Amino acid sequence: MAPASKAWAVVAGVGPGTGAAVARKFGLEYPVALLARSPENYEPLVKEINDTGGKAIGISTDVADANSVTSAFRKIESEFGSHGCAAAIFNASGRFFRKSVLELTEKEFTAGYEVSAKGAFLFTQAALPHLLKVAEESSTPHPPTLIYTGATASVKSNALMSSFSTGKYAMRALAQSVAREFAPKGVHVAHAIIDGVIDIPRTKEWLKDQPPEAKISAAGIADAYWNLHTQPKTTFTNEIDIRPMLEKW
Amino acid sequence: MAPASKAWAVVAGVGPGTGAAVARKFGLEYPVALLARSPENYEPLVKEINDTGGKAIGISTDVADANSVTSAFRKIESEFGSHGCAAAIFNASGRFFRKSVLELTEKEFTAGYEVSAKGAFLFTQAALPHLLKVAEESSTPHPPTLIYTGATASVKSNALMSSFSTGKYAMRALAQSVAREFAPKGVHVAHAIIDGVIDIPRTKEWLKDQPPEAKISAAGIADAYWNLHTQPKTTFTNEIDIRPMLEKW
Amino acid sequence: MAPASKAWAVVAGVGPGTGAAVARKFGLEYPVALLARSPENYEPLVKEINDTGGKAIGISTDVADANSVTSAFRKIESEFGSHGCAAAIFNASGRFFRKSVLELTEKEFTAGYEVSAKGAFLFTQAALPHLLKVAEESSTPHPPTLIYTGATASVKSNALMSSFSTGKYAMRALAQSVAREFAPKGVHVAHAIIDGVIDIPRTKEWLKDQPPEAKISAAGIADAYWNLHTQPKTTFTNEIDIRPMLEKW
Amino acid sequence: MAPASKAWAVVAGVGPGTGAAVARKFGLEYPVALLARSPENYEPLVKEINDTGGKAIGISTDVADANSVTSAFRKIESEFGSHGCAAAIFNASGRFFRKSVLELTEKEFTAGYEVSAKGAFLFTQAALPHLLKVAEESSTPHPPTLIYTGATASVKSNALMSSFSTGKYAMRALAQSVAREFAPKGVHVAHAIIDGVIDIPRTKEWLKDQPPEAKISAAGIADAYWNLHTQPKTTFTNEIDIRPMLEKW
Repeated sequence: MAPASKAWAVVAGVGPGTGAAVARKFGLEYPVALLARSPENYEPLVKEINDTGGKAIGISTDVADANSVTSAFRKIESEFGSHGCAAAIFNASGRFFRKSVLELTEKEFTAGYEVSAKGAFLFTQAALPHLLKVAEESSTPHPPTLIYTGATASVKSNALMSSFSTGKYAMRALAQSVAREFAPKGVHVAHAIIDGVIDIPRTKEWLKDQPPEAKISAAGIADAYWNLHTQPKTTFTNEIDIRPMLEKW
Repeated sequence: MAPASKAWAVVAGVGPGTGAAVARKFGLEYPVALLARSPENYEPLVKEINDTGGKAIGISTDVADANSVTSAFRKIESEFGSHGCAAAIFNASGRFFRKSVLELTEKEFTAGYEVSAKGAFLFTQAALPHLLKVAEESSTPHPPTLIYTGATASVKSNALMSSFSTGKYAMRALAQSVAREFAPKGVHVAHAIIDGVIDIPRTKEWLKDQPPEAKISAAGIADAYWNLHTQPKTTFTNEIDIRPMLEKW
Repeated sequence: MAPASKAWAVVAGVGPGTGAAVARKFGLEYPVALLARSPENYEPLVKEINDTGGKAIGISTDVADANSVTSAFRKIESEFGSHGCAAAIFNASGRFFRKSVLELTEKEFTAGYEVSAKGAFLFTQAALPHLLKVAEESSTPHPPTLIYTGATASVKSNALMSSFSTGKYAMRALAQSVAREFAPKGVHVAHAIIDGVIDIPRTKEWLKDQPPEAKISAAGIADAYWNLHTQPKTTFTNEIDIRPMLEKW
Repeated sequence: MAPASKAWAVVAGVGPGTGAAVARKFGLEYPVALLARSPENYEPLVKEINDTGGKAIGISTDVADANSVTSAFRKIESEFGSHGCAAAIFNASGRFFRKSVLELTEKEFTAGYEVSAKGAFLFTQAALPHLLKVAEESSTPHPPTLIYTGATASVKSNALMSSFSTGKYAMRALAQSVAREFAPKGVHVAHAIIDGVIDIPRTKEWLKDQPPEAKISAAGIADAYWNLHTQPKTTFTNEIDIRPMLEKW
């Protein structure tokens, strides 16, 4: 069954975990554009969504590059039309360096910020006009929604984690500023603190001696994001945390 | 249509706002017990739920009184059976004093704590065995859930607000401690920071010059609580904030 | 040498740790009143301060009892005169129960609040008029100061800690509310998060395999409090954390 | 009188406010190196400190440029010797853009991060070996100290402030990570949240209708930083806030 809505959704940072689950979920209702650096990351999913009655496109995008982001949104508009954006989810993370602050190269240190904050900024700038269009035309049943995927490191900055946490703290600052600026214009902005290991193929060997409730299900995150999206203008949640039942915090 | 579930739900602090909306929402799925000091606060709602195919009882309860709370839960069990508690929502608030710390009597100062924290503690102690029963028997599709209704004053303590904020800060501490203790046993504990004016008859004259999006809808809160309740064990949210789109924060 | 100042200081919660160190430090400048439940806790220190040229009195006080607190301040005034209070430090803690929320009696649960929050409130009410007197008369070189001793549990509420943390969260709410109300009137209010084990006789056996830098020195806390006290009106610190160099946080 | 210590201090971001006051304060005890982009910012102060018996050098430095920072520290060592760094204060802020997230250029958005976070990182990397030298040799009476100057925007991110706040949030993340990594090695790392308008020539016209207690005194900040520096290993403060008595918060 084709998506009911003409307004589309966009997910940046599609891999085997949260991004894919979110794309599947929002793809049930909206044409959905999947952005990732490497086509391998979205191709099977684009096919899956299209094969099961949805409407998806994948666009190879470097979220830290302004031209790449601009061109991705131009592509989305040319494919899906100028119906505006119902939901934009920023889920990208850069390379991860667990190193002493003394051992990080400048490039490694800034890698967290490049994707998590500068990338989030470029994505935000590109998505907002389309989100505002939906807000102004009230063309979807739910307020247009912009969600950022944060982490434990968005609120706690441990030793050896400065590259990652500086990017995530900065992303949270961006999310709060954008939320405050655009809520009065009808755009719902939310930041999610994902606290724990997500259950994906890459983490299969982690926490092996523990029951499944020691890891977060990506589908559960997608459901939580969908629930954020369906909140009315009178009831915006701007921050949630998400962790599996066995997580220590 | 009668509720599908035998496990029941309980809402403490049922008035015309959040409590009533939550009772209506959870009453679609569960037999629901409504606790409030004054029967006027729950009687019409009990009738409404029973008239529309649900199953509700009201119990006059002083949440700050241990005997009253114990006896309320005994009554619930005798009415609804020992099927356990699927959801317990603590939504009570004591009298509110906006006064200089120099002008508060001891009784006024402690009034916030009496209901928000001691009341929450007594409710928690009474509800937990019933929540654990559902967790152990996995007798509901969703993990049993314990939700506390907080406020802006749960995280910010302004001048003249000490009676209210000390109670709300303490309730948040309780919620976090209980969440950490009982999540590994399968009970989902969440704390909601309700930030703004709820749209109820009593606040009709407030923010009158503003559009409806300046107030929180109680039904929106109830939906958010339901969404918390339906989260699986792999995806627990322990804290959310909720505010209307026009709220300054 | 007798204290230079006629305005006095008062410390509630004097035991062998922080309270004693704070009394010694502030006793170098001010006549100092030491409040504790049991005279054993202040008697040697009162003697020590008086023997070394200071001026100290001890008053057996139950901070959770309004009459006891009122009478203590009346005693201070009769002994030290109506010169006002230069510094009031609330350092009392009630009995500590490390127990499941299911096992706490109501009395045990409320024990944390009784001292940490209600006691802090009663102390605040009693001290404020004397602090305001010093503020209005600018009778001391430093703005009058009210300091609350918090703990890790003031901002993190772990499993089994609800009695303690609910009291400490509530005290922090009180401190913030009082700070916001009375800073414009010239009273400096600060809250200290003491994060770690204090090095006192009772904790001698703790962390025994670690170097001294694994524990907090009470004298270090007293110095930090004194530094807070000497801040001018243009530079108030309202919250600090304090931990030993080897503390994990 | 020449500074007693051979170990030196370094202040990055010396202008007419906090930086200058901190340099003056630490210059009473240590030879002090002043870093700023423009020599105008440090030249009068270098002269003043040298004329009054201290020992100061100024180095034109772009903290966001790795080579510039490296060369500055080489210069310091060649001038002051390899005695290590007793205190390093990072006080630099980039250009400030108060703009909608939609109107910021990429360069404007990243400007906050470039100085506040990347600059802080480069400064941290350059200073740490010298701080560790002092820690290892215990060559100063106080543990070597690394202080970062934050702002209200380090913990609250308002509308139109994303360029500034993303940089400041990221700096706070860096400070926390470095604190956790290097405290066990004896380096005291602290982050200061400066909340309010600092009283400097540039802000002379601001808050003109208010008494002096509406602004923060730079000298007060310098005293607070000195107090942080003099804390022993048993009593590290990792975060303080500072605001004038009339600030709303």
